[in-house]
Amino acid sequence: MDTTFDALLVRMKELRDLNGLIGLAAWDQETYLPLKAAEARAQQLSTLQGLHHERLVDPRLGEWLAWTEGRTDLSDDQLAMARVLIQERDRAVKVPRALVQALAEAQSRGLHAWRQARKENRFELFRPALERLLVLRREQADAYGHDGERYDALLEGFEPGMRVARLDPVLSSLRDTLIAWVARLQTAPRQVLDVLQGRRFDTDVQWRLSLRLLEDMGFDLEAGRQDKSIHPFSSGLHPTDVRLTTGLEEGSLASLFTTLHEGGHGLYEQGFHPAHYRTPLANAPSMGLHESQSRLWENLVGRGRPFWSHYFPVLREAFPQSLADVEMEAFVASINRVTPSLIRVDADEVTYNLHIVLRYELELLLIRDELPLADLPEAWNERMRRFLGITPPDDRQGVLQDIHWAWGEFGYFPTYALGNLYAASLFSTARRALPGLEQGLARGELRPLRDWLRTHVHAEGYRLPAEERVRQVTGEGLTDEDFLVYLRSKFGELYGVKL
Amino acid sequence: MDTTFDALLVRMKELRDLNGLIGLAAWDQETYLPLKAAEARAQQLSTLQGLHHERLVDPRLGEWLAWTEGRTDLSDDQLAMARVLIQERDRAVKVPRALVQALAEAQSRGLHAWRQARKENRFELFRPALERLLVLRREQADAYGHDGERYDALLEGFEPGMRVARLDPVLSSLRDTLIAWVARLQTAPRQVLDVLQGRRFDTDVQWRLSLRLLEDMGFDLEAGRQDKSIHPFSSGLHPTDVRLTTGLEEGSLASLFTTLHEGGHGLYEQGFHPAHYRTPLANAPSMGLHESQSRLWENLVGRGRPFWSHYFPVLREAFPQSLADVEMEAFVASINRVTPSLIRVDADEVTYNLHIVLRYELELLLIRDELPLADLPEAWNERMRRFLGITPPDDRQGVLQDIHWAWGEFGYFPTYALGNLYAASLFSTARRALPGLEQGLARGELRPLRDWLRTHVHAEGYRLPAEERVRQVTGEGLTDEDFLVYLRSKFGELYGVKL
Repeated sequence: MDTTFDALLVRMKELRDLNGLIGLAAWDQETYLPLKAAEARAQQLSTLQGLHHERLVDPRLGEWLAWTEGRTDLSDDQLAMARVLIQERDRAVKVPRALVQALAEAQSRGLHAWRQARKENRFELFRPALERLLVLRREQADAYGHDGERYDALLEGFEPGMRVARLDPVLSSLRDTLIAWVARLQTAPRQVLDVLQGRRFDTDVQWRLSLRLLEDMGFDLEAGRQDKSIHPFSSGLHPTDVRLTTGLEEGSLASLFTTLHEGGHGLYEQGFHPAHYRTPLANAPSMGLHESQSRLWENLVGRGRPFWSHYFPVLREAFPQSLADVEMEAFVASINRVTPSLIRVDADEVTYNLHIVLRYELELLLIRDELPLADLPEAWNERMRRFLGITPPDDRQGVLQDIHWAWGEFGYFPTYALGNLYAASLFSTARRALPGLEQGLARGELRPLRDWLRTHVHAEGYRLPAEERVRQVTGEGLTDEDFLVYLRSKFGELYGVKL
Repeated sequence: MDTTFDALLVRMKELRDLNGLIGLAAWDQETYLPLKAAEARAQQLSTLQGLHHERLVDPRLGEWLAWTEGRTDLSDDQLAMARVLIQERDRAVKVPRALVQALAEAQSRGLHAWRQARKENRFELFRPALERLLVLRREQADAYGHDGERYDALLEGFEPGMRVARLDPVLSSLRDTLIAWVARLQTAPRQVLDVLQGRRFDTDVQWRLSLRLLEDMGFDLEAGRQDKSIHPFSSGLHPTDVRLTTGLEEGSLASLFTTLHEGGHGLYEQGFHPAHYRTPLANAPSMGLHESQSRLWENLVGRGRPFWSHYFPVLREAFPQSLADVEMEAFVASINRVTPSLIRVDADEVTYNLHIVLRYELELLLIRDELPLADLPEAWNERMRRFLGITPPDDRQGVLQDIHWAWGEFGYFPTYALGNLYAASLFSTARRALPGLEQGLARGELRPLRDWLRTHVHAEGYRLPAEERVRQVTGEGLTDEDFLVYLRSKFGELYGVKL
């Protein structure tokens, strides 16, 4: 009996190591890979992923996992490890090899066509490849199985346990509220200026500041590192080896918010329980919950006044010339300025979720086959007008802006909104649980918050599905209530309006 | 028929990709790995190596390889690919799993014991672990099989085709000549001063110079890179992804010679024929031939007067203060100064091979079980006196200085000597083949030499065993003649003696 679980554990560790190595190869690809090695790296990654898949669908693993079911002599953690791996394996087994290969090819073509279409600003160049990806994803969703709503089967890959029936009412209600608020903020009597525009910030100084922020957050720089990359990301090769990246631009302080964002992801990865290392429990239960940690640090902490009470003087000392004439209040207002804009990744906290709902609604229609692809650009633009009151001047700044659909990734965008909602619920609970929290932030004390998150979220790993974990901590599941309370208070005050 | 070779090729590529990934994980370990991730990385590397071994000894691979033997419808390259892989697989299959595991454990203990012994300067602390490693290596050599000389079976792992019966006379004769020459140089009427001692060289400037050298050599920095590490090394993840490292110290210009050395290895890795990528032919046929390329650039080019005719003015411009009072002739003499010394890695071109022969003779005795380990330190010291006329004051500077034996690596040291001998033969041939070679070097033109090496050595890959390859190029196999001619001319002139 023990020997079967031992065999299972050996395989779990092997799969986990392969994942870590895939992470290393992908990290290196974005940071240090020589220019001409792109093809070689793609081949190496494909070999690794093929091996991972082969070991995952191995029938012997299926037997070992089946053996665990219903056993009373295994610990709760052992049962949870098996449960998570069963889920992952079941999905992998269900997709025929021919479909896996067809998808890989369609993804590669999709990326290529999208790049071309973006370059020439012609959606039509992308349409056939996108059509093919949709056909294959629908096929894949049917292979996974679902209760009538195909999108559920894709959502499951990023947000296990979440369903359209649960998600849709929350996002629809959020959308309606935000549309109204965005309109109100735009006509508010008090308007916010961007006092940072046109200023220069030495990138070496930004780099040093970003490392200081990571250290202050309690990110362990001996169990992780930060590097530079064009598109920032975080990657957990192992809880003792967590890699973050940031981008640096002289004309912006974005690197600091990127660092807080990726640092939030990084704290999650470093915070798994040592007893879970190299098992399926050393994982976040969903992408949305992972994103809640990055959003929490980037926005609820990092765009808050308490945080800058401590760090604005630090910032000013770092950039004495660039910030000589800037007051803290004007700075905090600037980094919270609300402006309907075209590009999601630049959006503020109020408009951001509207970008997400827009994509969610469209991809739901696409997967249901209820929106002809020829109508997609206009459906996009129509929602941009309805949600944000602006019209993209071209597809490059509209339907072609994101890479996700080009890669055939449907079901992922909602996790960004879930991240924002979970972040607000968790932060509101943290404020109640840690009475001096904001005074502490105002003194630069970030670690009590990290410790609270570590105990209640990170160290729990994948023991429970995301919404259940949030419910255990906050007393309620998925809701937009805390998020709206947070926005109402912050932006109502900032713009001098009642939301 | 074609399908069998196709299956074989798929597996070859997979094995090659896994090797590349092992290279990446090992490179990262020495350059960017977070401090606390050492254990996680060791586990990941062990998982990768385990998978590589499993795929290599897979019986199906054995069948595919057996199918190729004697076929007339395969190309010469296809047959060569199969031949190389058969060799590698046969060795892997012959070692029982229990021995592999016992060796891994003994290596780990060996390293630990060696570190402890070095720290406390007590060989006795290392002896039991070394004894265990020797017992297991002898067992492994017997498993591989040999014609009575066990050492041959170990040598084969680094220098396929080389045998003690062939190597021993060459190294013994080389030893006797060098012992005489070292003595003569020490009493030469003209002595060489080290004019560089005590000077400081900014490490950022050294770094930039080292990159310039790589570029001048024709190392493609878009298909490779250079990073910093404590122990310099080179690692070919793929011919488009070759990683070099160097170490930087303010008190020395060693980084430049390290860069030439690792750059020489790097040119080899980048020079494989594109048709051989991801097959066993995109490999050097031996460690000795690989080392010949690093030695050729480091010593025959990089410590030569023609090279410095061009680069000394560059160097002086880079360090105008540190080198203000140094003349080129004094500089070239300094970097060629011959001094019997205790530490191999610091040895000059004349004494270096004596360090190697010393280790070769001792490990041959050890593998033959003709030298009790208790006598090893004294056997070492006795040879140091006989070869170089100096006695190590302690074991740290004697028998405990190298890491190789601590890792149970026997049969590797000779490749350093082979590298020096092959380098001299190849360089002497290149001088004849490229009449303006040295005048070109004096103008900083390094690429004609690279191109010649690429054609005659690099692009050939593993088509032939090392000595045969050298014979094809130079007209003769392993010999110390060219090396001695080179030393005689260079050091005879430098010291004003007839050698």
